[in-house]
Amino acid sequence: MALIEQLNKRYATKNFDTTKKISTENLSTLLEAIRLSASSYGLQAYKVVVVENDEIRKRLREVSWNQSQITDASQLLVFAVETDASESTVDGFVANIAKTRNMEAKDLTGYSDMMKGTFQRPKEVVLNWLTHQVYIGLGFGLVTAAELNIDACPMEGFDSDKYDEILGLKKQNLHSVVLLAVGYRSAEDGYQHLAKVRRSKADFFVNV
Amino acid sequence: MALIEQLNKRYATKNFDTTKKISTENLSTLLEAIRLSASSYGLQAYKVVVVENDEIRKRLREVSWNQSQITDASQLLVFAVETDASESTVDGFVANIAKTRNMEAKDLTGYSDMMKGTFQRPKEVVLNWLTHQVYIGLGFGLVTAAELNIDACPMEGFDSDKYDEILGLKKQNLHSVVLLAVGYRSAEDGYQHLAKVRRSKADFFVNV
Repeated sequence: MALIEQLNKRYATKNFDTTKKISTENLSTLLEAIRLSASSYGLQAYKVVVVENDEIRKRLREVSWNQSQITDASQLLVFAVETDASESTVDGFVANIAKTRNMEAKDLTGYSDMMKGTFQRPKEVVLNWLTHQVYIGLGFGLVTAAELNIDACPMEGFDSDKYDEILGLKKQNLHSVVLLAVGYRSAEDGYQHLAKVRRSKADFFVNV
Repeated sequence: MALIEQLNKRYATKNFDTTKKISTENLSTLLEAIRLSASSYGLQAYKVVVVENDEIRKRLREVSWNQSQITDASQLLVFAVETDASESTVDGFVANIAKTRNMEAKDLTGYSDMMKGTFQRPKEVVLNWLTHQVYIGLGFGLVTAAELNIDACPMEGFDSDKYDEILGLKKQNLHSVVLLAVGYRSAEDGYQHLAKVRRSKADFFVNV
């Protein structure tokens, strides 16, 4: 299958070619795949910040261990979870369901109450749960990038509080969780030639 | 792009066709994509339990709010994080790198020490971090299933402690995190006809 070949070719790109930009069409496909990604109930309690601005990226790089991907990739995607997600998030979601499916919100009361129940858990548990969903979106982005022959580097090594400040996320009740730098590998990036290291099938799968 | 069409067709399948099994080849492709998925450092501190056994699935269904997907899907994938991941996990990973890339483990000491540093954080923080990686694998599984025209349902509504008991995970220091039921939708599953509900682009993306 072609996809497996693409997944074997992908790697966490360390050096991007600064002269190559992702086409508008491909970027739009990549973002659309992330927007379509699954999340618990479909709540999607996060946003994706698409950073292109060079000045901002310079500042972000300073709080990302000076990793070159931040400034050199074609775009930097910052996945940010909603820290104030609550019962009213459910209300917004239910309104969206009703609108999309031509239903009355009141006919969704049972479903809405069930979802609201999950927000009764401790705030930290709720935030963990919502953060998990962000990583599904990251997975969708990584596979789609591979399909599109776009190189990518998922990154957790950055100061998320500083990101929130620089990107003005805190005042929007958003908290940066994980990054996806996307673009095209530099011919100089030696990592592309290294054999992929993965757990063996025997070590990774258990059959029951 | 064909992938976007596939992602629009996918949905969290509620009723699977019990007469349809995923072919050996397609199942193997799906699992391979999950095995190839990205994870922090490439550590992959989790396993995927592929459950086919009917008796076991009946017992799992009892602790999954009686959801039919558990027994009716072609296979049930249980993603389980390693609860005892530690510095020795890093040693195993480094040995795998050395073997795969024909290097000496001692030449990877700096990298190894850096990774071991991340295990110095509180146990709960480490486990959260490792759990995030599991969800990337789930994302890889979902997109690949869509590509292969395999239907799937990601599920969090189950008693993970009971799963650990029934599948004998606890004694292997594994903890079930999330499920992916895979197979083929039943023609009777009304959910397949509902319009997909997603946040609008304007609401989901921020451009900087």
